Order: sequence, then C-alpha cells, then structure tokens
Amino acid sequence: MYSSRALRVVRWGRHTCHCLDAAAQLHTKQFAPKKALILTKFSRYEFEKKRHGNIPEAELEKRLKERGSDYNMLLYHHYLHKGCENTVVQALRNQNIDTKVVTRFDYKSDVIEESDIVFTMGGDGTFLLGATRILHPNKPIVGINSDPTRSEGHLLLPKRYSVNIKEAVQRLLAGKFRWLFRKRIRMTLIGQDVYKPPVELHNQQLLNPEYRYLDMDWSNASLPTSYMESSTMVEPRGITYAKQARVLPVLALNEVFIAECLSARVSYYEMSIDGGPQFKQKSSGLCVSTGTGSTSWTYNINKLTPQVVSQLMNALKHETGLELDSKDEALVGRVTDRVNQVLIFGPEENRMCYTIRDPVMSAPRSAAEKRPRGLARRLEVRSRCFDANLVVDGGLSFPFNDGTVAILDIHDDDALRTVVLDD
Amino acid sequence: MYSSRALRVVRWGRHTCHCLDAAAQLHTKQFAPKKALILTKFSRYEFEKKRHGNIPEAELEKRLKERGSDYNMLLYHHYLHKGCENTVVQALRNQNIDTKVVTRFDYKSDVIEESDIVFTMGGDGTFLLGATRILHPNKPIVGINSDPTRSEGHLLLPKRYSVNIKEAVQRLLAGKFRWLFRKRIRMTLIGQDVYKPPVELHNQQLLNPEYRYLDMDWSNASLPTSYMESSTMVEPRGITYAKQARVLPVLALNEVFIAECLSARVSYYEMSIDGGPQFKQKSSGLCVSTGTGSTSWTYNINKLTPQVVSQLMNALKHETGLELDSKDEALVGRVTDRVNQVLIFGPEENRMCYTIRDPVMSAPRSAAEKRPRGLARRLEVRSRCFDANLVVDGGLSFPFNDGTVAILDIHDDDALRTVVLDD
Repeated sequence: MYSSRALRVVRWGRHTCHCLDAAAQLHTKQFAPKKALILTKFSRYEFEKKRHGNIPEAELEKRLKERGSDYNMLLYHHYLHKGCENTVVQALRNQNIDTKVVTRFDYKSDVIEESDIVFTMGGDGTFLLGATRILHPNKPIVGINSDPTRSEGHLLLPKRYSVNIKEAVQRLLAGKFRWLFRKRIRMTLIGQDVYKPPVELHNQQLLNPEYRYLDMDWSNASLPTSYMESSTMVEPRGITYAKQARVLPVLALNEVFIAECLSARVSYYEMSIDGGPQFKQKSSGLCVSTGTGSTSWTYNINKLTPQVVSQLMNALKHETGLELDSKDEALVGRVTDRVNQVLIFGPEENRMCYTIRDPVMSAPRSAAEKRPRGLARRLEVRSRCFDANLVVDGGLSFPFNDGTVAILDIHDDDALRTVVLDD
Repeated sequence: MYSSRALRVVRWGRHTCHCLDAAAQLHTKQFAPKKALILTKFSRYEFEKKRHGNIPEAELEKRLKERGSDYNMLLYHHYLHKGCENTVVQALRNQNIDTKVVTRFDYKSDVIEESDIVFTMGGDGTFLLGATRILHPNKPIVGINSDPTRSEGHLLLPKRYSVNIKEAVQRLLAGKFRWLFRKRIRMTLIGQDVYKPPVELHNQQLLNPEYRYLDMDWSNASLPTSYMESSTMVEPRGITYAKQARVLPVLALNEVFIAECLSARVSYYEMSIDGGPQFKQKSSGLCVSTGTGSTSWTYNINKLTPQVVSQLMNALKHETGLELDSKDEALVGRVTDRVNQVLIFGPEENRMCYTIRDPVMSAPRSAAEKRPRGLARRLEVRSRCFDANLVVDGGLSFPFNDGTVAILDIHDDDALRTVVLDD
C-alpha cells in the first residue's frame, strides 16, 4: 500500500528445490554420504554428573536421592539413549561412513560443514537444536528418536526405526526415501532495538533444560542473505528515530508467537496480510505457524472440543429445526475430529497459518476479526505493545516493542532438508 | 478426597442477602442516604498538570504539544468529566445529601465508612477502583459513566443517565430500583510465599494508568474473615516446608487468571472441581470468571467466530448428509450469536465459569480435557509452575509458584452491593 522509507533491496536469487538438489548433488538415488555427524542429546544423568563436578558415583547417587531424584531412572534413560546411539554409530561405520559424535557443546558450524549428513539422537528438542545451525537446504538432517517411550517425535523418524536403526540406514543408502523440505519462517525486524540480544526461554519442566541457542554469538548476527524485505506499513506520524533492518539469524521450524511478555497483558498490534489493508488488533497474542508446527501450539489454540461441537449442534438444531442429536457421542466425536483435521497442513506448504488468539472485538468489525485464523504467504506486524516479544519455536525471545515491524514469510532457501523413508 | 494437613477452621456465619439487608438497614423502599461519597476519576489532564509540577498553563500546553499529545482533547475530556461530576454533586445536594468528592488519593476506609453510599465518576476502571476497598455487601456503590463516548461502562449505570443524572438520583431516593449483588471470587492461598507482596500491572494503553491498588497496605493484609478454607488436594511426596494460609485481601469482580508470568511458557497445574478428582493439566492458562466478568476476558477466550461455525457446519454436513448451507451468512450469524450467548451468565450467580485455555491433550484423556470449560462452586488449583502468577481483574498479580494451592469460591459475604434502576 503506502511505502515506508525504502530499504535497499538486493535479490540473491531464488532456487527451486530441484535446482538446489543439483547444486548440492543431493539426488536421492545418488546420495552417498561419506561423513556423518551425530548430534547426541546430553542426557540428564550426564548433566547431573557434570553439575556435581564429577564426584564419585556413590556420592552422586546419594546426593540425587536426597533431592528426591530417581537415580535409577536417570541411569536407565541414559543407557537407553547410549545404547541407541551406539547402534547408529555401528550401523553407519559398517557402511564405511566416517562417523563423528558430538554433544551440543561441540556442535559448531565447522563440523557441520565437513559432514555430508547430520543425525540427531534424542527427542524433538535435540532435532530443533540440530536444525538451529542449519540455515539453508543443503545439509540433510535426520532425527532419530532415542527414547520413544518419552518423546512423541513429531520431527523424527517413525518410532519403529528406533529399534531397527540398521534398516533405516540401509534404506537411506539404497535411495529408498524422498527428501522432505520442511519450510521455515524467516523474520525480518525493522525498528530501533532490533540488534538487542534475545533471551532464551527454557522449558522448566525439562530437568535438563534444552538450551538450543546458548552457544550462539549474537553480536552481529543476521541471516546470511542479501535479500532484504521492505515494509509497506504506514508509519505513525511523528516518528523520527533512525531505524535498522535485520533478518534474524534463526528460522522458525514450528511457529512464531508475538505478544506482550506478561501473560496477563492484552497485546496491541497492527497487521497486514499478503499486502492487504493494515488493521489494528487487540488480542492475547498472535501465533504464526508452519505446516510442521500445525500439530503443535497452533493446534492447541484452535482445536475444538466435543463440548463445543455439541453446543453448536444444539444451536443449529434450534435455528434450523433439523434433527441433530448433540448427545450422540460417536457423531460428535467424528465431527470434532473432522473439523480439527482442517487445522493440519503439510510441512512443505509455502504458506503460514496465522491465529489471532482471543481477539477483542471492536465495532465495526474488520474483515480480519471475522476470520481470526487463515493462511498467508506474507505477514507484516507492527507492535503497539509496551513490553512484548517475538518468540521462535517456544525457545528464543526477541524484544518487539512499540513501533517495531516484523515481516514474516517463507523462502525456499530457508527450508530444512530432511528425510521420509519409503514404507 | 484426601485431606492435606488440617487448618483451623472457624466459621464466621453465613447470611442470606435479606438478612444482610435487615442488618444494614438497606431495604430499597427505606433507603435514605444522608452522606454520599463520590470517587472521581483523576483525569489525564490533571495527571499531566500534577506531573509537570503545576507549571503555568501556557507552558504546560507547549510541553504537551511537543510530546505529540493533543492538549485540546485532554482539556475537552477533563471538562466533560468535571461537568458530569458537578451535576451529580448538585443533584445530591439538592436532595439534602451531604456530599464529599475525593480522588483516588483520598479514597480511604474511614471516609468510605462514614458514607451511606459511594458513587464513582469515571469509567469501568474507576468503578473497579471503588470496589477494591469495599469487601462486604453493606456499602452500596453506584457507577456513573462520565464519558460514555469513550467507556463502554459494563459496570455502570446505563449511558442515558450520564446526561440525566437528576433522574437517576430521584429514582434512587424514591426506591425505584433493586439491589444487584455482584458476586465476587474469594481467593485463599496455601503455601510458602503467600504473604509476598503483589505487583500491580497497569494497562499501558491508558496514558493515565488506572492504578487501583497503589495505596493499599500489603504488610499484614488478609481478608477480614475468620473463615478459613482447607485444601483437599493431595500433597506431592517429600514436601516438608511450613505452609501458611492466607485469604487474599482483594476480591475478584471480573475474573482470576492463573498462568506462568511469561506468555510464551506453557503452564502446568493440578485442579479439583467441586471436590472432584484431582487431575493434572498443561495449558496456556486458567481463567475463572464471575457472572459480571462473563462478558469480558473469558468471553473473548471462548467465543466462536462465524468462520469456525461455518467450518463446523461443513463437517456436520459430511458426517450426516443433512442439508446445511455453510455459506448462508445470516444462518451462520444467528448460530454464532446463539452459541456465544451461552457463555454469558448473571452477576448474582453463585458459580464461577472456569476455562482451561489452549489445553495440551494427553492420552488417555481426562474428563476435564473433554470439557475444558464449565461452571463450579469451588475450585482448587495447585501450581506446578516455574514462575507463575494469579492475576485479579487484570490488575493485581500475586506469585503462584510450584506447590502453592489456591482455593477459589464465592461467598455471599463478599458480594458487592450495587443498583439497577427501574426502567
């Protein structure tokens, strides 16, 4: 619509996926990795051992028990994980693949670069950690679920391979797979404080918090791309401060969540969807999800329950006179599942699903208020918040205060290359 | 179910509303107030004047304009408010009612006690402020909307009285009204840090933040009641710290919101509804609302949009083969309104509406997961959070961390006595 102050735009070049394949010599039938890097989860047992300064085992056991921790359980899960890890290493080395194992502390750009393929051993969190340092589609990454009883593993190979890793490796080397390009959201921030370092939010429920971004250098980090978006949002009058633009050096694999930091505060922002008219919004937050993330946070926000479906059937019955039995649990269940299935879409989809959560309606209603959820290729959001953040995959929080604009969109160049094994 | 460590319970005594009337000599036909207290909003103009140290008017105007504030608008709203206030004072004095006007700074227990009735002049925020210091049903409070163009006034007299205050006063004195007892939620906290002072969250969008609790003394404050709840929740093993119990010295007129402080964190807690089985829950927060609050935050969380209703009609059509036209906007609109109407209930209702927001489903599903929204007379909630809070009416935030139990229920003794004028 209206241009804001123009930013210099240099287009790097767009590649389609098969061009990327050719460029990276990554056709499935010819995929013959020589070097594999395994990023293995740092287990809670190892974490406690390190934390206690490598004291004798008996002493560690005693201290953990005093704290109410289940020492035997810790050991059990550690050895389960290590067993799985050893099996993978063996399976790869048996195929003459030079295999290196690292934990998060040594998972750096140089070792990633040297490898032909990255495997993660752990749960979804370890896979997310692995993906954090691969910001282009040229390095295949495969997640193996090392503890299928504890982790759902949405991002990982199916659980059956956790106990049959040799087969997974064989299929991979025999070309019996296809590439899956998980699309990710690129975030461009335009404003005053866009180089302020982010804060890592860890999942407190994990006794061994999965710090994914801890070792990253934030001092001058932007995404290595020369392609810079420019915002079309109308500036409020009187804004004279100098603005910077920054493409964030992280890509969202699941979702971006934008809201006031405090959960009790309502968020004010303005949005433009796919270049459409800018509109103001007041809500408890904005969630923007990829296809990968469509079974995650956004699903929990949007899903309907049998309770609601039942009430709706009643209301429909009253309005239409049709025979609708809202007490028919089986019917209610099927309708609920069907309507919730609509929320899920594929990881290779180039669109994002945005949800304006708990919108506060104003009169007259904007079009967006009637449709607080939809798909978009590009979103522009301007913060009118007091103390807000933009949170990436529930882990990393960037300041997003009054006046800052975020541009969210999906680029082929940012996809994560992973694998779906043939059945 | 299982008793936790017993707390001494002394029952103060339950009164029904008509007994309260008799005790307080508050029959409508005999209501003849001699002294009225008016709590008047401190306008933004006054706020800015005070903030700038009472400099000459011309200087104030200059400084405000430099900041981009609309000085003339500030004056306009200030005089509008003052005009309304003067009209009320006149109308009351003309009826020989001794009338005193105070701002928030002088709104204290002693002046409230002396008066027979409290009027608030301002918006909903001023009414909430007025209600904060009336923790029993014996002091009538009536809210007058001094700026109906800017405030919806859900808690106040209908907007027409804002320009016809004399009529409102006359009806009141002629007994042409009924008492409305707005039920409020009492909160009892049991745990380690229950006497930690709360934090006031102000609405940043208000340029003159409506600090409602600023002047309250938190040092030894509990609700003045000797009736103490005891928790039935099962204690996790190994808890040995000493617990305290405290009935909070505030009552929720709209709602209580319980969640991790940070909006990006998922909240873990356990709940028991009306003494039922305790169950674990993982969600983005728990909202517990009164009838008064049922058009507010909880409504925004739970309401359905035409978009969702349309999708549901489609799903029903597929499952039943019935002729349902999801593109019939009028029908979709009527169904949406009907199903959302179910969310609203009366302010005198003794039950609260709880909503488990964005529940993360686990398998197998608990009964509560199928019904994340319902009515209850009593709720017990145990925090399993890292850094959570219990927020009262979106304004006051109490710490609510791992292990703390909150008991929420409604007592007649805690109601707020206000007025509905006859048509």
